[in-house]
Amino acid sequence: MTINDPSTTPQSVTGPRINKGLVIVNTGTGKGKTTAAMGVMFRAWGRGMNVIMMQFIKHSTANFGEQRAAKKLGITMKAMGDGFTWRSKDLDQSAELAKAHWEDCKTIISSNEYDLLILDEFTYPMHYGWVDVDEVIETLKSKPEMLHIIITGRNAPEKLVDYADLVTDMTLVKHPYKEGIKAQPGIEF
Amino acid sequence: MTINDPSTTPQSVTGPRINKGLVIVNTGTGKGKTTAAMGVMFRAWGRGMNVIMMQFIKHSTANFGEQRAAKKLGITMKAMGDGFTWRSKDLDQSAELAKAHWEDCKTIISSNEYDLLILDEFTYPMHYGWVDVDEVIETLKSKPEMLHIIITGRNAPEKLVDYADLVTDMTLVKHPYKEGIKAQPGIEF
Repeated sequence: MTINDPSTTPQSVTGPRINKGLVIVNTGTGKGKTTAAMGVMFRAWGRGMNVIMMQFIKHSTANFGEQRAAKKLGITMKAMGDGFTWRSKDLDQSAELAKAHWEDCKTIISSNEYDLLILDEFTYPMHYGWVDVDEVIETLKSKPEMLHIIITGRNAPEKLVDYADLVTDMTLVKHPYKEGIKAQPGIEF
Repeated sequence: MTINDPSTTPQSVTGPRINKGLVIVNTGTGKGKTTAAMGVMFRAWGRGMNVIMMQFIKHSTANFGEQRAAKKLGITMKAMGDGFTWRSKDLDQSAELAKAHWEDCKTIISSNEYDLLILDEFTYPMHYGWVDVDEVIETLKSKPEMLHIIITGRNAPEKLVDYADLVTDMTLVKHPYKEGIKAQPGIEF
């Protein structure tokens, strides 16, 4: 029997606890990258921690389930994308928005006011070269020691994966879109 | 450019929408199975949907971040395990608890009072033969049409994967426990 997922058995953790703010990366082509980050946010919020979520791709006017929930809870969830997809025509604009949003994130990081920061879909600006990966890693290195940072999105840069403490690849096994079932409100957005 | 994760671009979904309650499975040895389910719960709750989470392995006295958050939001999160791990000595008791909890879940499913039901770590009772997979699938087949059900845990039975609409395998890439960093409150429990 090998049920040894530490998340299910925290009561069994023994030995000296190294307290450290983790750098977590949720990547891969499957579902669950953003929702897993939101689940951690929910958990941290439950413990009274100060949490914030910065979204890089979703449009600034986004009002999906997570924005509505965050608003109800008083959690800051700031989107500053232009809904960028592969169909986007103005990539310069997408790049500029991402750069400006990253500057805000750096201010948030250095403010030392938060326990958990989620950089949602932040892999894309790095993957497309809009934000320099080395600069991101330098910023992570100088972050407040106890701040946890979760970065989500496909194509996480190798340097980021190397630097991170915890990396999970969400792997698509089966997806209902293939069978003509459309995105369900409340479940997928 | 291939940013085509539908969850990031729901505004671009076109064509007839098939409304259907999804059966979702989050499995694999990596992190994020339970937190991704909680993220969906957060999103659904944000849209005013009626959500409930039944936990199979966590002890009934669990008071981790998610239980605290759920309590604050008035979300029912009912744990009925005995903290079962591979160290457990009384597997008969674990089996009995799981069976009884599954009976409660069937009542919840047939009640038609919920929009989203999470069966957290429910793969284990199936994997160990405490709950019959065929019976679970029969129950899923007769569930209210619009009810979404998320099942989490390692070793999802093949029959369940075959039946589910959406299956993601959370794959461990890198884990901080290997480097002596212990589970962090608010992040991992």
